Amino acid sequence: MTRLAVLLLCSALASPALAQELRATGDLGVVVERATGSVLIVDQSEHAAIGRVEGLGDLSHASLVFSPDERFAFVFGRDGGLTKVDILTQKIVGRVVQSGNSIGGAISDDGKLVAVANYEPGGVNVFDADTLEQVASIPAGGKALGLEDAAGRKFVFSVWDTNETKIVDFSGSNDPVITTLSDIGENPYDALVTDDGRTYIAGLFGEDGLTAIDLWADTPEARRILPHYGRGAEEMPVYKMPHLEGWAKAGDQIVLPAIHHHEVLWVDARTLEETGRTEVHSQPVFAMARPGGRQVWVNFAHPDNDTVQVIDTMSHEIIGEMKPGPAVLHMEFTSRGTEAWVSVRDENKVVIYDTTTLEPIGEIAAESPSGIFFTARAHRLGL
Amino acid sequence: MTRLAVLLLCSALASPALAQELRATGDLGVVVERATGSVLIVDQSEHAAIGRVEGLGDLSHASLVFSPDERFAFVFGRDGGLTKVDILTQKIVGRVVQSGNSIGGAISDDGKLVAVANYEPGGVNVFDADTLEQVASIPAGGKALGLEDAAGRKFVFSVWDTNETKIVDFSGSNDPVITTLSDIGENPYDALVTDDGRTYIAGLFGEDGLTAIDLWADTPEARRILPHYGRGAEEMPVYKMPHLEGWAKAGDQIVLPAIHHHEVLWVDARTLEETGRTEVHSQPVFAMARPGGRQVWVNFAHPDNDTVQVIDTMSHEIIGEMKPGPAVLHMEFTSRGTEAWVSVRDENKVVIYDTTTLEPIGEIAAESPSGIFFTARAHRLGL
Repeated sequence: MTRLAVLLLCSALASPALAQELRATGDLGVVVERATGSVLIVDQSEHAAIGRVEGLGDLSHASLVFSPDERFAFVFGRDGGLTKVDILTQKIVGRVVQSGNSIGGAISDDGKLVAVANYEPGGVNVFDADTLEQVASIPAGGKALGLEDAAGRKFVFSVWDTNETKIVDFSGSNDPVITTLSDIGENPYDALVTDDGRTYIAGLFGEDGLTAIDLWADTPEARRILPHYGRGAEEMPVYKMPHLEGWAKAGDQIVLPAIHHHEVLWVDARTLEETGRTEVHSQPVFAMARPGGRQVWVNFAHPDNDTVQVIDTMSHEIIGEMKPGPAVLHMEFTSRGTEAWVSVRDENKVVIYDTTTLEPIGEIAAESPSGIFFTARAHRLGL
Repeated sequence: MTRLAVLLLCSALASPALAQELRATGDLGVVVERATGSVLIVDQSEHAAIGRVEGLGDLSHASLVFSPDERFAFVFGRDGGLTKVDILTQKIVGRVVQSGNSIGGAISDDGKLVAVANYEPGGVNVFDADTLEQVASIPAGGKALGLEDAAGRKFVFSVWDTNETKIVDFSGSNDPVITTLSDIGENPYDALVTDDGRTYIAGLFGEDGLTAIDLWADTPEARRILPHYGRGAEEMPVYKMPHLEGWAKAGDQIVLPAIHHHEVLWVDARTLEETGRTEVHSQPVFAMARPGGRQVWVNFAHPDNDTVQVIDTMSHEIIGEMKPGPAVLHMEFTSRGTEAWVSVRDENKVVIYDTTTLEPIGEIAAESPSGIFFTARAHRLGL
């Protein structure tokens, strides 16, 4: 064997380690590039992209979750693809196309199970987070959505067609105990879990109001809240309804985008009753609280989606307005809130703002960026 | 060349990279070994120690904070030593002995500044987090303590001898603007900042009650709360007073150890008024909320410090009691609350509990372990 042959052999053996320098993962993030089926891996401290991973399929409306060690991103594509990306080696390490049409997923609190909600054929599929082998399939009589994790290896989701919410408890084994709540409201279309993991809130397309479920109760029950929140008699397509992840908890308040009105609503987090409204630039999409909840940043629907407004959560007044560029799709704060990263789809960039001065302090090129996800999400409940 | 020879050669060539394999940092932690001046680096997912770093000086009452990327731990020793540990390479990369006697520190929200509170000669020293070069010295007329970070590159601390709290604002530059609040109460001895970064609460040794300061107010003012919380007429040494980091926020409630009584107190997080008490095993030291706030775990003072109790935060009833071993000094939850790690000093071990079953599921050898710190702390305010 020649010396060259040895070196080539060594290089092949060692390349997975040598290709990548030692790197901590607490300040990394993943940006979805929706048009190209790729994700950009970014470093918050460097204000830079450090890699791109391609081949993830249809990433329109894609979202993702992180493994507890922040090494792996599980990316949920619109086409039913579930892709596991190693953000240290910047490679796809697993991929299954698990249904024809899916809409979001979740990772169990212990990091062992990844669940995906499906429109076609409906129901939820659950996978081993290590191997992506399927461990369970939860049938439902229709489109599954609003899939969230809850404490104790549980998942919660709702079913558009049957007006049900299902609590799926994997605490004992991979053979889950399923509790079904009926008649939670007409056509649930999305949901959220509060940051303490306690309350599941489902949005309804078929009627006004929302449904709250106390997951800590011995017998969880559906309770109607905010009876005037909804589209009313307005004819609207489902995709014009705000995503409920657009809600934000800011101290004692929940802030949410009004439907079809140029307002955000303030809700008492304890009573879940409305306490006020703030008039904003246009139809809000996301109202996101800076960590700690001192301000809320709001972006807007087409054609007014070049603007971001910042609202003081004590006074409820608008204290800043920026124009990052056309088609601001998403915002993500660094974990202690010093920066906000804003995706500007139609200028192919992510703009970084100082949250104190509201001035741009950096910019990263990205292909039609949509969702921005920082690894600190690995440590949060109900995502 | 034999196959074995190739493998050996490859192994040698690759060793610089293989000695430290690529590793994500989201599930790592640092355990203080107080008697030996060392720290143990642990991996939550593996339930194992992955390294030890020695030479950190006097680590009695040591605490630490993490850099935003979770790569570095800044360890505050009792002897004034500030040591920067690289938890990936498991080496000390910087160390200064910055005073004769210090008690805790903090890292600014942007991760650029590390501040240390000093008893001797008093005041606070501030260092560049990259280089450990000193960038500022904040004088005070006595012992500095209760040093916490606040939003916008601020630090807050109190002064035992002068009854003052100082807000140190580094937002403009490394030449800080200092606001001093006088007469906050007699002999502040410790403090905390709530998890939203809004409220600074100082404990008082010289009188009953505590002092709360709203850091979001245009003009922050000291306000007296919980007038009956204190040692009363009891003669007690300062070190018998509970550390205020022993407080926990559990949903709408704050839980705190009573002083000199076998009780924990429940306080409304909104009004800061007491709402109830739960009788516990002995004098509590830490009352720590599982992430999400569903339960609170309590440990106790000598000689009853072999016990941990678990309290339901909805019913305020004790639902579990464990005996991990003699001298339980600290507890730390994994970030989504599925496990609790408990240090048992006098049996030289850390015991890992499943928070659902309350059964031990792992154990790690450690030399006289005290504080356990997981890297997810890098993402929290007011630590």
